Formats: sequence, structure tokens, C-alpha cells
Amino acid sequence: VSGEFELIAAIRERIEAAGAPRRSPGLVLGSGDDAAITVRGGASATSVDALVEGVHFEVPPFTMREVGHKALATALSDLAAMGAEPAEAYVQLGVPTGRGEAELLELADGLGTLAAAHGVAIAGGDITAAPVLIVAVTVVGVADDAEALVLRSGARPGDALAVTGALGGAAAGLLLLERPDLEASVGREVADALRARQLAPAPRVEAGRALADAGATALIDISDGLGADAAHVAAASGVGVEIELARIPLHPGVAEIAAAAGVDPLGLAAGGGEDYELLAAFSPDAVEAARVAAARAGTNLTVIGTVAAGAEVLLRESGGGVRPPEGFDQLGPWRARADPA
Amino acid sequence: VSGEFELIAAIRERIEAAGAPRRSPGLVLGSGDDAAITVRGGASATSVDALVEGVHFEVPPFTMREVGHKALATALSDLAAMGAEPAEAYVQLGVPTGRGEAELLELADGLGTLAAAHGVAIAGGDITAAPVLIVAVTVVGVADDAEALVLRSGARPGDALAVTGALGGAAAGLLLLERPDLEASVGREVADALRARQLAPAPRVEAGRALADAGATALIDISDGLGADAAHVAAASGVGVEIELARIPLHPGVAEIAAAAGVDPLGLAAGGGEDYELLAAFSPDAVEAARVAAARAGTNLTVIGTVAAGAEVLLRESGGGVRPPEGFDQLGPWRARADPA
Repeated sequence: VSGEFELIAAIRERIEAAGAPRRSPGLVLGSGDDAAITVRGGASATSVDALVEGVHFEVPPFTMREVGHKALATALSDLAAMGAEPAEAYVQLGVPTGRGEAELLELADGLGTLAAAHGVAIAGGDITAAPVLIVAVTVVGVADDAEALVLRSGARPGDALAVTGALGGAAAGLLLLERPDLEASVGREVADALRARQLAPAPRVEAGRALADAGATALIDISDGLGADAAHVAAASGVGVEIELARIPLHPGVAEIAAAAGVDPLGLAAGGGEDYELLAAFSPDAVEAARVAAARAGTNLTVIGTVAAGAEVLLRESGGGVRPPEGFDQLGPWRARADPA
Repeated sequence: VSGEFELIAAIRERIEAAGAPRRSPGLVLGSGDDAAITVRGGASATSVDALVEGVHFEVPPFTMREVGHKALATALSDLAAMGAEPAEAYVQLGVPTGRGEAELLELADGLGTLAAAHGVAIAGGDITAAPVLIVAVTVVGVADDAEALVLRSGARPGDALAVTGALGGAAAGLLLLERPDLEASVGREVADALRARQLAPAPRVEAGRALADAGATALIDISDGLGADAAHVAAASGVGVEIELARIPLHPGVAEIAAAAGVDPLGLAAGGGEDYELLAAFSPDAVEAARVAAARAGTNLTVIGTVAAGAEVLLRESGGGVRPPEGFDQLGPWRARADPA
């Protein structure tokens, strides 16, 4: 590598070699100038997300490829949570001295492969030295009009609350990465699947669009944890939420890993976060059609609770007890030391 | 601060208190949901830029306010370099444990004040713990259509090459920050102005739009250094560039600081970077009108060279010699240690 611009060119080449398109509909100028140019009507949804080494991941257990994949995946998950169709991504890389060009190209490969899968053009970026590896991603998605996008704020008392896929896998995967001995409780194949939920999550882009089309009144992705994200919907919608913990679909292997580790499987599913499934509210009479739409988009949709009047977020145990929502705090390490009180 | 969401709310409040608008034209949903929503026709220009503590700044000499200002300023400068009208910004903050809430609110104040000055809505963001302070900004600007935006690639042999404002101030300001004794050569007032060029640069947003309207064939902001940025224009346009160093307008005080420090003032002006002035190419018969347009936008426009056939970038000394272009390498610290060869 003879300089910044040669490295950028090599990264761009690897992203394209992975199949990421040079253009998305409406992108008339991609990376290489002072800014990218898009021309299109309709509505755009824009979201930013960042992964920081030592906070969100370590290499290992993550490979550089998985870091690139996950950085884009978490950003695309926010577009899924609007029901938007991904169009472009912009990538800001911070690279520490310990990472050579070959590793950065692996990261580009992971990012480019996921971009290819979703037809996302990497339309711009920025690269700089940094003390740790940082991948900050801005994504832009599109929809015919603003009404086609689903906010957190539309849930109404009486709505059903449902989740895509199954929960707890990412948290169980994290446990497995910390304690390889737990693998014996589920076997290699299930353990691999659980680790993949943590290392290379799949954003529910198609399901998000399907649920939006099916009339979701509120939509959010489960990144902070089911309880915390349900609380976001409740706060934004001015409603309460009741979730029956026993109805939460558990990812295969979560129960076994939890038992082997001596932790509560529902804690992993409701508080663990990073599953990047979708939580949606629907008028009760729209649920069946939504389930069919989700199935067409490749995932289950499971009703786990209801939207209520008030403002309380209740996670009901099958025995009748309730527990408070908890979730991952992005600022945990910062708060723990910055505010020792 | 009791958590991530309270801190985000406090930052958002401070940005609005500084006068940043809640909405820009076309922004129908601002921060707080999974993504912001815009609805508009015409063309959009999108660019990303990041400032990393220890690479781009240290606190001190920067205040937190100046860090917030400069992070947005450098991003807006990329929109100026397209001739776009700034509309929204998205801000990703990485915060180390050593920075308390009050400092982060100062940063928000600097960012919000500049956003207010340019009518930019802070439409979203992300905050996370990080080992050093990181401010990554995505900006979106608008124009009536893609043809109204000016790329780097339109310069033609025979065009005049011109710069706004004056150069070398940011590099001289950096010298002053490293060596306060140099202040005696220019006095306090000029020294303050030079330091401000480094600490709180003003993006040439209005001038950029004026130069685009006046028919600039190519446009770039001078962030890497005049020589390096001229080389970007040359490469993108498939042309050569000749700059007469003696014609470069020097910022007041640069000559004196350079003399006191024993360095070449033209080195500061042509290689120093971070001036965030604009470099534009014009058909010779468009130069006079462009000068008038720039003056209306509050700045000078000075012809410093010409666009030539070929691919060479020549910086001509008044004695007849030439020097190669040089500039700031964002990856300097990375390359120095990652590729010791």
C-alpha cells in the first residue's frame, strides 16, 4: 500500500469483486468525488450505525470478514425496521496500526458480500487512522412514499405484538464464544448456528418490507433486547406493552445452552439483544395476513403479546410474575467509568 | 446521566438550543426512530467525514466546541465542493470514558451552532463508547437536478484554475498551536485568526453554490492540500494542471509565521491542507462573472493557474523550477507502522 488513495481503490475493488453493485436505482454518481449523487422521487430513509472494536466486537472471535458483514447488517436492520428497500451505504473506516491491507480487504469482502445480497451500492466512504478498528455505516433506503414506511410510533391499544424468527440466539452465541465448553450441550452444528447469530446476523430486510405492506402499525428491530425495544415502541406510541415470556420463540439450542450455563433462557431471549429480528404491532385482524407475508419473506411471525393503554412495559412470567425490561447499553463502558456515582 | 437514551436526549436538546432547525425542506421525520425520512425531488449529494482524536485533533488545543464545529465543517465543505445546499447531517459519536456529559454537550453546542448557521437539521445519530473521541458526520445536500452539481471531473484544457479566499492559514495556525512563541511575529489578533483557521474552519457553502451557478467545470475543496487536491481534479478530469505558486493568495500572517519558523510560506499554502477553500476550474470567459459571484458570496476568487492537456500536476516556482504536489495523508500513522517497508 503506497497511500490512502491506493488503499481506498483496493477496498473499492474488493467490494465490487464481492458482487456489490456499482449503482443502485437513482444513484447517478458513486464514490470517488466529494459526494455521491442520487436523483429520485419518493421517500428515503437514512440511518447511521457504528461498530467499535472493544465495545461491539473483538478480533478474534470475529473474523475481519464478519466485522464487515455485521457493520452493514446492523445498519440494514434499521432500514428493515422501517420497511424500506436498501439502496446505498456509505462506510467510514477507522484502522489501527495493527491491521494490514490484507485484513482490511477481508473486511471489505464481508461488507461487499452482504451488500451484494441486498443490492446495496457502496456509494462513498472515508478512511482514517484510529486507535482501534471502527466501522461506521450510513445506509439509505427507499419507499414509494413516506406513508409506506413504518415508524415506532403507530402502535394502538388492542394491537397484537409479534416477532419474526426466534430470539436468544445471538446472546447464546456470545456465551458460546466465551465458553467453548458449552458446545457439548448442543453439538457442533447448532453451536455454529448460534455463533453465526452473533458474528454474522442476517438483517430482516425482506420481512420488514412484507410486514410494512401487511399493515404493521409500528415496527422496530431488536438490537437492544426485546424488552428494551418494546419499551421504545411503547414510549414512541404513547402506549403500554404486555409480553408473555412463554410465547417468545426461542432459537434452537438456546434452552440447552442456558441450562448448561446456569442462566435463564428467557433472559437471553428478552434481554440479550443483537438478534436483529423485527418486533411489529398489528391490528388483530391483520395478523393472519402478516403471518403469510412473513412466511413468503422467509420467516415466522409469532404473536407474543399485546399493546395496552397506559405506559407500562410488562414482561409476564407464566407463573404470573412480571420482570422489568433490560437491554444492552451502548454506553456501558463509558457510563461505568465516566459516572462512577 | 442515567443512560444512553437520556444522554442522546440531552445532546439533541443542546443542538436545538444552539439554533439548529428541527426540519430541513423535505425532512419529514427527524431523529428518534430507526431512520430519518426525507421526501423530495431533485438531486441529493451525500458525503461522510470523520474526525478522530489523536489523528485529526487533540483536546486541548481544541475545545470540545471546536471539535463539534470542525467535524460538521469538514463534512459541509464536501457539499460546498459540489455546489449543493446543505439539508441534513447525521452524527456518530464515539465517547471515551474520560469525557463527561458536560463536555459532550459543549461539542453538541459547537456542532449545533454551525448547523444553525447553515440551516442544517441534525436528523439522526448514534452514540457509543470508544477509546478516543470520534465524530463521524454524514451530510446530505440538495440541488434542483444533478446537472446543477459540479464534479471533479469536468476540467478541460485551457480552463482557468482559481481558489477562493486565501491559503496557508490552517497550516500556520497549526504551527502557532505547536509553538506559541511564533505569535510575536504577527501579534495576537492575526494569531487568533490563524488559529481559528485550524480550530474552527468555515466551509465555503455559499461560495460553492455561487461558483456552481457561475459555470465551474470542476470543483473540489482544499482539504488535503492545494497540490494534492489539484492532482485529484487532474486525475478525475484526465487533464494536467499548472499552478503558479507566486499567484497563490496567502492568508494574512502566513508569510510572517513561516519566516519566524524558518519554513517556506508556499509550502504551507500549497501543501498544508485543511484550509477548506475551494479550487475551481472555469472556461476563461466565465472567470470574471465567477469572481463577481464569489464576491457576492463573501469571498475572493483568485486565478492561480491553468488546466493543461496531459496528466502532469506542476507547481511552478517564480524562478522557473517546479515542485511535486504533496498533501496530508489520512492514513499517515497507520501506514507508518502497518507497512514499515
